[in-house]
Amino acid sequence: MQSIQYYSQIVEKGVGNVQFPLSPSNLYDPLRYFLVLGGKRMRPVLTLMATDAFGVDCNKSLPAALSVELFHNFSLIHDDIMDEAPIRRGQATVHTKWNQNIAILSGDVLLVKAYQELAKQDPKIVAELLHIFNKTAVEVCEGQQMDMDFENREDVTITEYIEMIRLKTSVLLGCALEMGAIVAETSKENKELIYEFGQHVGIAFQIQDDILDLYADPEKFGKQVGGDVICNKKTLLLLKAFELANDFQKDELAVLLNEEDAEFKVAAVRNLFDSIGIKEICKGIMQEHYSIAKEALAKINIPDEKKKPLLELAAYLMEREI
Amino acid sequence: MQSIQYYSQIVEKGVGNVQFPLSPSNLYDPLRYFLVLGGKRMRPVLTLMATDAFGVDCNKSLPAALSVELFHNFSLIHDDIMDEAPIRRGQATVHTKWNQNIAILSGDVLLVKAYQELAKQDPKIVAELLHIFNKTAVEVCEGQQMDMDFENREDVTITEYIEMIRLKTSVLLGCALEMGAIVAETSKENKELIYEFGQHVGIAFQIQDDILDLYADPEKFGKQVGGDVICNKKTLLLLKAFELANDFQKDELAVLLNEEDAEFKVAAVRNLFDSIGIKEICKGIMQEHYSIAKEALAKINIPDEKKKPLLELAAYLMEREI
Repeated sequence: MQSIQYYSQIVEKGVGNVQFPLSPSNLYDPLRYFLVLGGKRMRPVLTLMATDAFGVDCNKSLPAALSVELFHNFSLIHDDIMDEAPIRRGQATVHTKWNQNIAILSGDVLLVKAYQELAKQDPKIVAELLHIFNKTAVEVCEGQQMDMDFENREDVTITEYIEMIRLKTSVLLGCALEMGAIVAETSKENKELIYEFGQHVGIAFQIQDDILDLYADPEKFGKQVGGDVICNKKTLLLLKAFELANDFQKDELAVLLNEEDAEFKVAAVRNLFDSIGIKEICKGIMQEHYSIAKEALAKINIPDEKKKPLLELAAYLMEREI
Repeated sequence: MQSIQYYSQIVEKGVGNVQFPLSPSNLYDPLRYFLVLGGKRMRPVLTLMATDAFGVDCNKSLPAALSVELFHNFSLIHDDIMDEAPIRRGQATVHTKWNQNIAILSGDVLLVKAYQELAKQDPKIVAELLHIFNKTAVEVCEGQQMDMDFENREDVTITEYIEMIRLKTSVLLGCALEMGAIVAETSKENKELIYEFGQHVGIAFQIQDDILDLYADPEKFGKQVGGDVICNKKTLLLLKAFELANDFQKDELAVLLNEEDAEFKVAAVRNLFDSIGIKEICKGIMQEHYSIAKEALAKINIPDEKKKPLLELAAYLMEREI
């Protein structure tokens, strides 16, 4: 069995080999800068793992894997503009380091570059890859729009929230895996199951992100703990709290949303959440999606041995310290 | 022989049939709004004409034609943000009517929709279509970046300027035609020649745009005559003027660039250009590219009768009143 590191190394080398012209430098310098900032490269690793799981040399799906990674980075560059985020992966975002117009246009060309990588796969499967890639790309945009819309809405339901994170984050994990499966030319059913696996790992992962934002060990967490609470982000935790709080707790929470002392606000909201049991409830929802993911993986018609790297990666993602 | 109107009608119907989901409305309403603002639909008409010219029913290339039109509209939505343009086709631009974030994201999803249309062509030619489409999309982004870079440069050469308009505008005309030729499955040489035809028609068209901006009949011109002069845009006219002016004229031009009375500025710059003969010189360069285009068309290995709609469209584009 190959390790996560094995696949990561192939991806890192692949990303390093993605070439951009020198000119116009204002278009391509931001991409050279942004792509080496790193990130977990989780999505392209999934593509390679899927190809391997279905018995085909994973190097064969490297272009598809890179297309997913380039797409992900395109979406981050544009999301950072929309979210007015100054920092990404500890460094200045593209629109901060250059300017907004350059970030729009660099993002655009990176999206096209993602399609150029995709087009390097065998022509006879390009149409099928394009189909799932396009569908996913549209959904990611829809998820981002929903996320922005939620900022101005006070009636967001938990169902809507899960749908938003499914579109914004999870479908791309499903797509990454399915593209690996398409390259391996496995059955339609296997393709659907591995997509399902990825999608629910993605939802679980995103819920865990919400939990970690408030409950992570500040020593180990890369950013400010409680950031979502400070800016009143409608996470699963906050939505669940409003759903389950009694009238007294609801009033307290409403007052806390206007609290200006960030440190006090984070501590008080956490206390309130703890009194309702929000952390355990959200972990339960996360576990549900993790279980659905594992069930889908169990149904895939390949030897269990072949599924191990995928299970290992999912476990690694789920076992980040909460 | 089919008329331009015949192809336009097929395109209009096709554009009308492009469906967007109702939700998220902030993502798709802007696209419904923008796509019906019209425009000449010149690019998709070229795709259909090319397919027809090579003896295949033009309805077969409608998805490719629509993909070019959607791409063009994506680029307009994003360019309007970058140029801070309030008005497009007589109506409010997307970032003005909604907001900038919505314009970024609607543009993004429209680019993906362009690829979705492309993917509707026969899978066996999708890879080839994708190749020229991707290459062109990258070039259009490069052209837009060059255009933005030129604003902050005082040493733009005419060669660079022609390269900028080639990338920003002309390659998409070549691409539109070549995609029509790919659908018709004609020879490699014919594909290259029809691309060349489109590219040089595009350069000539853009030069004519520069000339019209200052020399159009105000009664017939849809926007303010002299707009480029007022904002000191580095058009072919201005670059040629600086190249050919004597020292006295150069000083006069430099002073005029800082003139604040718009009406006086436009009239004075036009007088200066007239004394150098700028209009005729630029018309000459335009004619050169129009001739190269017609030579490429002449070399295409199909009966002359089949070339007539393409020649007619090119003539129509070139004969706008100067």
